[in-house]
Amino acid sequence: MKTEKNAQLRLAKRPQGEAGPDDFELTHDQVPSPRDGEVLVECHLLSVDPSSRTHWNAGQSYRSMVQVGQVIDVGVAGRVLESNHPDFSAGDYIVGPGGIHEFGVIPGDQLTLCDTRIAPLSSWLGGLYMTGLTAYFGLLEIGQPKEGETVLVTAASGAVGMVAGQIAGIKGARVVGVAGTDEKCQFLINELKFEAAVNYKSLTLYNDLREATPDRVDVIFDNVGGPLLDTLFRRLAIGARIIVSGATSQYNNETIYGPTNYLALATMRARMEGFIIFDYEDRYQAARVEMIEWVKRGELKLVENIVDGGVGDYPNVLHRLYEGANVGKMLLRLPTAN
Amino acid sequence: MKTEKNAQLRLAKRPQGEAGPDDFELTHDQVPSPRDGEVLVECHLLSVDPSSRTHWNAGQSYRSMVQVGQVIDVGVAGRVLESNHPDFSAGDYIVGPGGIHEFGVIPGDQLTLCDTRIAPLSSWLGGLYMTGLTAYFGLLEIGQPKEGETVLVTAASGAVGMVAGQIAGIKGARVVGVAGTDEKCQFLINELKFEAAVNYKSLTLYNDLREATPDRVDVIFDNVGGPLLDTLFRRLAIGARIIVSGATSQYNNETIYGPTNYLALATMRARMEGFIIFDYEDRYQAARVEMIEWVKRGELKLVENIVDGGVGDYPNVLHRLYEGANVGKMLLRLPTAN
Repeated sequence: MKTEKNAQLRLAKRPQGEAGPDDFELTHDQVPSPRDGEVLVECHLLSVDPSSRTHWNAGQSYRSMVQVGQVIDVGVAGRVLESNHPDFSAGDYIVGPGGIHEFGVIPGDQLTLCDTRIAPLSSWLGGLYMTGLTAYFGLLEIGQPKEGETVLVTAASGAVGMVAGQIAGIKGARVVGVAGTDEKCQFLINELKFEAAVNYKSLTLYNDLREATPDRVDVIFDNVGGPLLDTLFRRLAIGARIIVSGATSQYNNETIYGPTNYLALATMRARMEGFIIFDYEDRYQAARVEMIEWVKRGELKLVENIVDGGVGDYPNVLHRLYEGANVGKMLLRLPTAN
Repeated sequence: MKTEKNAQLRLAKRPQGEAGPDDFELTHDQVPSPRDGEVLVECHLLSVDPSSRTHWNAGQSYRSMVQVGQVIDVGVAGRVLESNHPDFSAGDYIVGPGGIHEFGVIPGDQLTLCDTRIAPLSSWLGGLYMTGLTAYFGLLEIGQPKEGETVLVTAASGAVGMVAGQIAGIKGARVVGVAGTDEKCQFLINELKFEAAVNYKSLTLYNDLREATPDRVDVIFDNVGGPLLDTLFRRLAIGARIIVSGATSQYNNETIYGPTNYLALATMRARMEGFIIFDYEDRYQAARVEMIEWVKRGELKLVENIVDGGVGDYPNVLHRLYEGANVGKMLLRLPTAN
């Protein structure tokens, strides 16, 4: 074992608006020991997700909320140090649900073994983990794009959006991305082969969207919500499907912006539908196999934005996400990785 | 022909908010003559619908808007005076798309022959016409209630809601109505056999809803929109379907209230879907046959609220709808009916 000390980030209080430094507390404990069925993991990479913010509020959600004083839960990738589970041995690389800490004990049946010859560990925690799976199942199960249809993805250069858009392209759709800078739009077109991309900060946003979607939009994969979604309602095609994947623009708000144009659902015979990724758990592995095949063929690029730092840097890295500086899946690489 | 003069109500200007007397103009023309394929109709009953208001704004909708100076279009029921269409003869009773006028010329292929031995003419313009068909197709095609599921209907004592709720009951659902007075709630329970009814003006609305829907809500047939719909989002069951039928609370507003709780669609794996009744035109007749069968068996009650008056009284009768005084389908009976 590298160290006796285990740095952790805990929730100090429930944040108001965007979480700031005062909302977290850096603590140091002993490295824990795994019990029967558990595995001790040295965390190398932590997943940084805007949706985490929704777990820091009081009240109910579809998963347990983080309690004040608890270590904040995030997805982790790392190396097995000690295993009391038959499927894992010391030295294995894994991804799974952990926390913002250097060392964690995780039930073995929640872990996925990562073959780093197939894809780097960062991709196992990126496009092949929850954000990529969210894109895969949300797009294919809820959106069900048909060949030749127009699929529009918001936060398209983000962790979920970039995978959703590329899969839509693989399925023969005409893919349009919405992102927050011209550089990101160029990235979508040049690197990820989107048909068109629109900067949502443009002063001529609606006209830009109209030009980019001459046949309107059959499927919206929405990660953003807010006024942008409202504008997109004006571009619905008849029979359109809106996938409610997330609402990154709203997670820091006390009151969510409700889409005032939702009656377009009636005029366009459209539907807006949500999903919970955990419902598809039985099919994660099959989805990974298919995505890895696309990666091998060069049809799917998994892009990660890896920032080096300690567990105490997590809030700052999360803040970068809100600043919109990020392209691809944001990951924090801990010193333990070296 | 009873008279040479034909009273009509025209749109004088585009209303701001709720339409008032100044927004309409009463005019008198000659009784028109039908051309080939057309039928001259003496209108006895005019359909009074909150959704009509949406056709008086400028801008696009799923059907042509009423232009300033035009006779306002509404559904009519009446008697054929003169027919240039092979399917109709003088003396036949019909329903079809007409206007706020005493006499109208309507293309024969848009008319439905009404057998008044089966149901009174008012029911042919009520539950067997557009509002009843909207309930039938919206509930069965979009909501798809299963036996034992909970179906909640808003504006449940109105023209669409009362039919939607009763059909849900016929299909074996547990039906809960939301209405605006305690009397209406009693009517729903005692006359229409709803399982429960909630007054949305109650100060304990959410608690009332929770008590009325112990297993949450599988299908919401929403005619109202606004803050009420937002509250209902909190009662969604997993896999719930929200039928976007209308938004009577919002038709007079310049800015629509967007549902701020729409992210419950994700947590509850729910969908919100709209429809346009005209898409089901081929199946209107089959739906009427089925509904008439239910009426004969006493399972479906078609209730009309018939107000006597001239075409100039139409705005006042429409205002009563907004006051929430109405139970059943609101109709204006013209002096021509006598």
